Amino acid sequence: MRNVAVLGIGMTKFGKFLDRSLKDLGREAINNALTDVGISKEQIQAAYVGNTAGGIVTGQHCIRGQVILRAMGIGDIPIMNIENACATGCATFYMAWMDVASGLHDCVLALGLDKVYHSDKKVSYEAVNAVRDIELSSASEQIGDALLGHAKRARNYMAAYGLTKEQLAMVSSKNHYNGSLNPYAQYQKPMTVDEILGFRVVADPITVPMCSPLGDGAAAVIVCSADYAKRYTTRPVFVATSVFRTGKDIGPDEPILTVRTSEEAYEMAGIGPSEINVFEVNDAVTFLEIEAYESLGICGRGESPSLIEGGITELTGRYAVNPSGGLESRGHPFGATGLAQIVELVWQLRGQAGQRQVEGPPKSGLAEMNGGHGYPDESAAEGITILKS
Amino acid sequence: MRNVAVLGIGMTKFGKFLDRSLKDLGREAINNALTDVGISKEQIQAAYVGNTAGGIVTGQHCIRGQVILRAMGIGDIPIMNIENACATGCATFYMAWMDVASGLHDCVLALGLDKVYHSDKKVSYEAVNAVRDIELSSASEQIGDALLGHAKRARNYMAAYGLTKEQLAMVSSKNHYNGSLNPYAQYQKPMTVDEILGFRVVADPITVPMCSPLGDGAAAVIVCSADYAKRYTTRPVFVATSVFRTGKDIGPDEPILTVRTSEEAYEMAGIGPSEINVFEVNDAVTFLEIEAYESLGICGRGESPSLIEGGITELTGRYAVNPSGGLESRGHPFGATGLAQIVELVWQLRGQAGQRQVEGPPKSGLAEMNGGHGYPDESAAEGITILKS
Repeated sequence: MRNVAVLGIGMTKFGKFLDRSLKDLGREAINNALTDVGISKEQIQAAYVGNTAGGIVTGQHCIRGQVILRAMGIGDIPIMNIENACATGCATFYMAWMDVASGLHDCVLALGLDKVYHSDKKVSYEAVNAVRDIELSSASEQIGDALLGHAKRARNYMAAYGLTKEQLAMVSSKNHYNGSLNPYAQYQKPMTVDEILGFRVVADPITVPMCSPLGDGAAAVIVCSADYAKRYTTRPVFVATSVFRTGKDIGPDEPILTVRTSEEAYEMAGIGPSEINVFEVNDAVTFLEIEAYESLGICGRGESPSLIEGGITELTGRYAVNPSGGLESRGHPFGATGLAQIVELVWQLRGQAGQRQVEGPPKSGLAEMNGGHGYPDESAAEGITILKS
Repeated sequence: MRNVAVLGIGMTKFGKFLDRSLKDLGREAINNALTDVGISKEQIQAAYVGNTAGGIVTGQHCIRGQVILRAMGIGDIPIMNIENACATGCATFYMAWMDVASGLHDCVLALGLDKVYHSDKKVSYEAVNAVRDIELSSASEQIGDALLGHAKRARNYMAAYGLTKEQLAMVSSKNHYNGSLNPYAQYQKPMTVDEILGFRVVADPITVPMCSPLGDGAAAVIVCSADYAKRYTTRPVFVATSVFRTGKDIGPDEPILTVRTSEEAYEMAGIGPSEINVFEVNDAVTFLEIEAYESLGICGRGESPSLIEGGITELTGRYAVNPSGGLESRGHPFGATGLAQIVELVWQLRGQAGQRQVEGPPKSGLAEMNGGHGYPDESAAEGITILKS
């Protein structure tokens, strides 16, 4: 397989945009990615377009990528529409990486976007609840089970390893602080631990700011062969590896799937967690970030409380996690999220992350996202990508 | 890129199955493909699952592949959900081919399936009408424009090259005859030219039996590396190439996109149309098959009438086209169609096509499918695959 580079990156601000269409969001993200590297849309040889809720929220059930790209004059190339729940964005990246790595195309677009916010909240919730097997049980049962499952694992972890509610809120506070430094974040307001704990409890110990909001947005990443990248930059960011899985093994106490996926990714990349300085991980619920610390090998089982107390995952720490603000602050338009993680890592590795720049700049970064938590004991999709400069 | 083989194939009978779910149809197609080659489901390392109408017809908007595969115990692998209108099936094959060709996995499943038939016809029509840009104009306008566009091109062709309504109906009659020999076809009843012309005119010169019916079904294809195939068969069928495109250039008079896609496919495969004896092509409306004769180079521009009169595209002809019965007789559950074409070609190349076996058996075959005809002057997706024994 060929060596693959990330050439151009772009995204929209995430937020609640009742007056913006998928075409509008997609165009802005793509144009930002093209401008970022200085190539024209005619250079794109294939496109993978990820969207989750378009059928439910906008009524565009089919050929979503063609509709969006055609509106801005991109055509005559393979356009593949991809869906994979909350991991849709990283699925499009994985496909674009595979395409270039295979040698089939030299310059490929991964676009992810979603409109989740709707004036009728019922429609937004229908979109959230769609990520499940509709034959197994009701939406409220399955999604409720998933959230209650996260909360229960959090309580079990607290009992076993002494994690406090304050420490859990410190992770959320870190992400809201990081988001306040990110002009693309849906929420750009820092929150203290006390403020976070003072909000309504969704499922003990999870409060409202510890959950990702409903929102809209798009992110675009252009990947290319290493040779192609040389024509445009002397300091490309390379894809060390991209791994995608479906797993039945989110156990009641441990996120086994992320462990296995990351082990595969580290082996393929030839890079271990100790060599990585910046991570973007799933914090759709804050406790998931703590599980990620341990699943990804940032620390050992049960060591998260001391990791948090030491500030190790803050912007200035040894392992900066979710410098973008994560899902709970940057936002989580399903299809866009996995690519927004890549965008943030590339900004970090290039040293272009502004006020939230991690020192160095870091030489490698890891993005982790999963989705389809509609089943209590499994995940529909998990993607991990490792980048290096 | 690595050499790729088709290892196992399977499909369900196509038809109107109100009592069968996507899970049920998918399981049968996959089990048939596994049994075909004698491998176990645990050997599948990645899966591409294509479905078009699941959100509208069954209410399963997201993670359709995971839901279907999980129900039969396939998990812990990358599962990618793919949508590309009527070309969804060939899109999944293209992705599975790319995956194995890239070297990432050795044994990959392409599954395509759809339920289009519904007790409430309005739901079925909603599914058919979804393959368009919903912002541009109404469904009836766009889909009507597409059908009227096909009919208008047919009338223009008749005026320019002397094609008669009887010759047009001969193509449809050929396909209905072929379908009568195919136990998997939705319609297994031969129809004479007079019978076909006696049906209601949908848009002059197109009558009802010249159009693909509403229906349900699934098809599965397991592809693998050439080395992997050697462990299971001494006579594998190889993928000479697979090409996928989106095109703006279905002109008012000529299907330019198919010409360009096939030229690319012939060049990549190193095989020209004169070396191919069996074709499966899009005949969602009979005239499209006649356009395919010329776009694919089976005959020159304007030569289709003599090709038809000479019986050259019949089962016993030099170029057998749609031996399966095509979309109008075998049926057209959107996501399944492109893979059902591959299944038919493999049966033909192996000499396993029973009463409809093309003599030889043929050494190479071509599958062509396109979709997203909602725009009058363009196609959302086109896929061409060439197989060789």
